[in-house]
Amino acid sequence: MFNFDFYNPTRILFGEDRLGSIDQLVPADAKVLITYGGGSAKKYGTVDKVRNALGDRIVHEFGGIEPNPHYETLVRAAEIVRREQIDFLLAIGGGSVIDGTKFITLAASYDGDALDLLKYGFSPIGLDVIGHTVPFGAVLTLPATGSEMNSGGVISYGQGKYPVFSELAFPKFSILDPTLTYTLPKIQVANGVVDAFVHTTEQYLTYPVEGRIQDRISEGILQTLIEIGETTIAEPENYDARANLVWSATLALNGLICAGVPQDWAAHMIGHELTALYGIDHGQTLAVILPSLLEVRREQKRAKLLQYADRVWRITEGSEDDRINSAIQKTRGFFESLGVKTRLSDYNIGADKIPEIIEQLKTHGMTALSETHDLTLDISQEILERAL
Amino acid sequence: MFNFDFYNPTRILFGEDRLGSIDQLVPADAKVLITYGGGSAKKYGTVDKVRNALGDRIVHEFGGIEPNPHYETLVRAAEIVRREQIDFLLAIGGGSVIDGTKFITLAASYDGDALDLLKYGFSPIGLDVIGHTVPFGAVLTLPATGSEMNSGGVISYGQGKYPVFSELAFPKFSILDPTLTYTLPKIQVANGVVDAFVHTTEQYLTYPVEGRIQDRISEGILQTLIEIGETTIAEPENYDARANLVWSATLALNGLICAGVPQDWAAHMIGHELTALYGIDHGQTLAVILPSLLEVRREQKRAKLLQYADRVWRITEGSEDDRINSAIQKTRGFFESLGVKTRLSDYNIGADKIPEIIEQLKTHGMTALSETHDLTLDISQEILERAL
Repeated sequence: MFNFDFYNPTRILFGEDRLGSIDQLVPADAKVLITYGGGSAKKYGTVDKVRNALGDRIVHEFGGIEPNPHYETLVRAAEIVRREQIDFLLAIGGGSVIDGTKFITLAASYDGDALDLLKYGFSPIGLDVIGHTVPFGAVLTLPATGSEMNSGGVISYGQGKYPVFSELAFPKFSILDPTLTYTLPKIQVANGVVDAFVHTTEQYLTYPVEGRIQDRISEGILQTLIEIGETTIAEPENYDARANLVWSATLALNGLICAGVPQDWAAHMIGHELTALYGIDHGQTLAVILPSLLEVRREQKRAKLLQYADRVWRITEGSEDDRINSAIQKTRGFFESLGVKTRLSDYNIGADKIPEIIEQLKTHGMTALSETHDLTLDISQEILERAL
Repeated sequence: MFNFDFYNPTRILFGEDRLGSIDQLVPADAKVLITYGGGSAKKYGTVDKVRNALGDRIVHEFGGIEPNPHYETLVRAAEIVRREQIDFLLAIGGGSVIDGTKFITLAASYDGDALDLLKYGFSPIGLDVIGHTVPFGAVLTLPATGSEMNSGGVISYGQGKYPVFSELAFPKFSILDPTLTYTLPKIQVANGVVDAFVHTTEQYLTYPVEGRIQDRISEGILQTLIEIGETTIAEPENYDARANLVWSATLALNGLICAGVPQDWAAHMIGHELTALYGIDHGQTLAVILPSLLEVRREQKRAKLLQYADRVWRITEGSEDDRINSAIQKTRGFFESLGVKTRLSDYNIGADKIPEIIEQLKTHGMTALSETHDLTLDISQEILERAL
């Protein structure tokens, strides 16, 4: 097991009817900015319920944070935070709104050009750069990214997606009420299942380092998602299925399963280019890339793929290669069973587009991906070709 | 799944050679009190290493915190904290020292009679009672109780053991270096494995509430402990086995696996009386009580016992009762394989002692134990009789 640090101070309030707690969690004299996305938080009444819980606090609203939140949008919100002297942010939404709100608080508190904050990549932005941020809470409406219980976000700028990490960007609290997610379109729920699944495989399907308990937790998340995936899409108001999706998605990216083990993230990095270039949903890009990536990287990942076949899919018959093939096939089949297509051609991307995807990876410095830093552009190309 | 709150702000530094980080984690101008137990932290040089990491800070020491830390001892330390205006505590030890240090910081910050703090039981002591505490960190030397990453402790007073909980009692940080545990006597490691195992079963072997991911994590902890238990006792310097024990024991009681599911704790409550009356080690008391408790409570726990038999022990043959019997037998066998005896008679406790144990349970109000609050004194008696 590798050495690791684990720190996660976000307070989780999980379950039905938790919005009333906001009154205790937000300082009584706080000036609040509510942030949200395209309007469903407003349409389905969540914004009103949150305003209601905030009582007579002064409340501003900033809607319109888009999927893959844009730098320009967030900087506008940061200006409001400064101008109105906001001292608490409340994000209502999924990963994009929460990621965006993290960036808003960092940008609002940063003295220089906020563009600087996109340069840190996976290196956390420390107290030496930003001394203090406006605290924020989150009300989750889309289970997928885990942003509600971590300190990272992904911000879109130009044709790129930029990771931003900072300990100052942990939500003070997150309210996870599964019933607030009932109104989601099926495809968003399906994408969420895939996203949580691939977050887990990025931290699990690498190489063994005797992180036994981390492996078991990862396998538990994958098994849970497999058990509840189709149900929670078919029966959106099945509370228990949805609750298990919500909590699994949160645990998949709260720092627990990556503690002390290698991490890959190549599927995400390649997938990000597909979103940036063609607007394919994040979850869909992962469903396309992961199966092909596992095929191409079967030697590097052999030991973990065999463990995955055995423990997650209960595949015990056949040669090692048979079992690995079968596990990859089951993975692809699982995504397809959720209604998420797994081929580039399903999204009208042909072989002719591969050069421009590779070019973008090159532009963004994605030339040595994976847990072993040896996934070159040639290998990314092979993965994309297999994904056609 | 039940509604739940989860909050755990303790920073974990896990792995070899982490003591140097203390210099960054403790304020530069802090006046520090190091707390420790019977002397092994001193003997094996950990106190010196910590002092070294603290540089030229003013450092006091308070040794002699005993197993099942006594109220009187801790109150003496609290007086030192006040008198010397200590502003950071550093606990070096296992659960007793860390539990004790939690109580020291609460008692030192409490204006009234510290005895009051024993009256809250499992109800957290809030900010209305104590507004501020002296922060503390921990250096773990004994993997077992999980105290290094939670906000609770058990304090001995007279013939009783009293739980104390407070959000103010989370360690700011805990250093978990498996190599610091290499010098432990085998019996203490074995007790630690049992303790972590039974912490997990207390939160898992109850009744099903569709807490799928919680169940999977619990099963993962149990499987890991079974896999590494004998090895980490036989080969104390096997890093990976010990690292898995340390991290499993921490995760077994950091609030994760109990979030949203029922909890039992009857084995602990009955076990506490055995420790208080006869000085039997905590882990040993659990190894005695758990198998008998599972036999007696097999109807209430039937669904989870079958799941436990299947997923943890891979028992799939035979009738339901056969599988449950077999799982209980395997549990007992596991404890025995670690060298921890599972019968009262192994500790020279005969049937003649049962009335006084029951009397103590009655005195301490332990008349309606378990996840369903229907484990009466009669049932405790039956459990003890089966444990003879």
